[in-house]
Amino acid sequence: MNHSTDIANLFADIPAQLPQELSTRLLDAKNLRIERIVSYGHASEPDFWYQQEEHEWVILLTGGALLRWASGREEALAPGDYVFIPAGEKHRVEGTLADEHSVWLAVFFAA
Amino acid sequence: MNHSTDIANLFADIPAQLPQELSTRLLDAKNLRIERIVSYGHASEPDFWYQQEEHEWVILLTGGALLRWASGREEALAPGDYVFIPAGEKHRVEGTLADEHSVWLAVFFAA
Repeated sequence: MNHSTDIANLFADIPAQLPQELSTRLLDAKNLRIERIVSYGHASEPDFWYQQEEHEWVILLTGGALLRWASGREEALAPGDYVFIPAGEKHRVEGTLADEHSVWLAVFFAA
Repeated sequence: MNHSTDIANLFADIPAQLPQELSTRLLDAKNLRIERIVSYGHASEPDFWYQQEEHEWVILLTGGALLRWASGREEALAPGDYVFIPAGEKHRVEGTLADEHSVWLAVFFAA
């Protein structure tokens, strides 16, 4: 397992400029990975769908985002909103707020 | 696995009165449990130490708290601060802010 027992802050070390979405691995354990993802107006590439082998539980903590599922489902996420995305479920980030950081905390785990 | 794919908000449904600390299970999977814990001036009982069979990764999202380890380590946590507590490591909540809700998000997983 790759981790530290030091205290760190989820909202620290966010670059002012974010040409690309930024993913940081916070904890890496057997069958479990916790990541911080920072978006700033980013969206998934056109026609790109995430389809992951792992389950994902994700919470948006700042900003705002629009998620879309291949099923046609679409949801706007505000700070504090969380959702479980089962492995294999096709989804994409349709967009995130253009004028502030959207900070996500994502827990990926074995299906 | 016990979960929903609906969207919910971590900061919703927090009772104004909290005679006891409130734990809510948000996701319950094999070897993994995600909980919301809401404190309001609560602390661990005197001389009580948590000593868990599972690893715990926990982040404080609102409020403030003081954690103490049996090793003598003590840390103040502000919003956004997170820490990994390995299974078996004796620790306790020395206190939480008396005048606002401290909302924690805890990920427990098999050691």
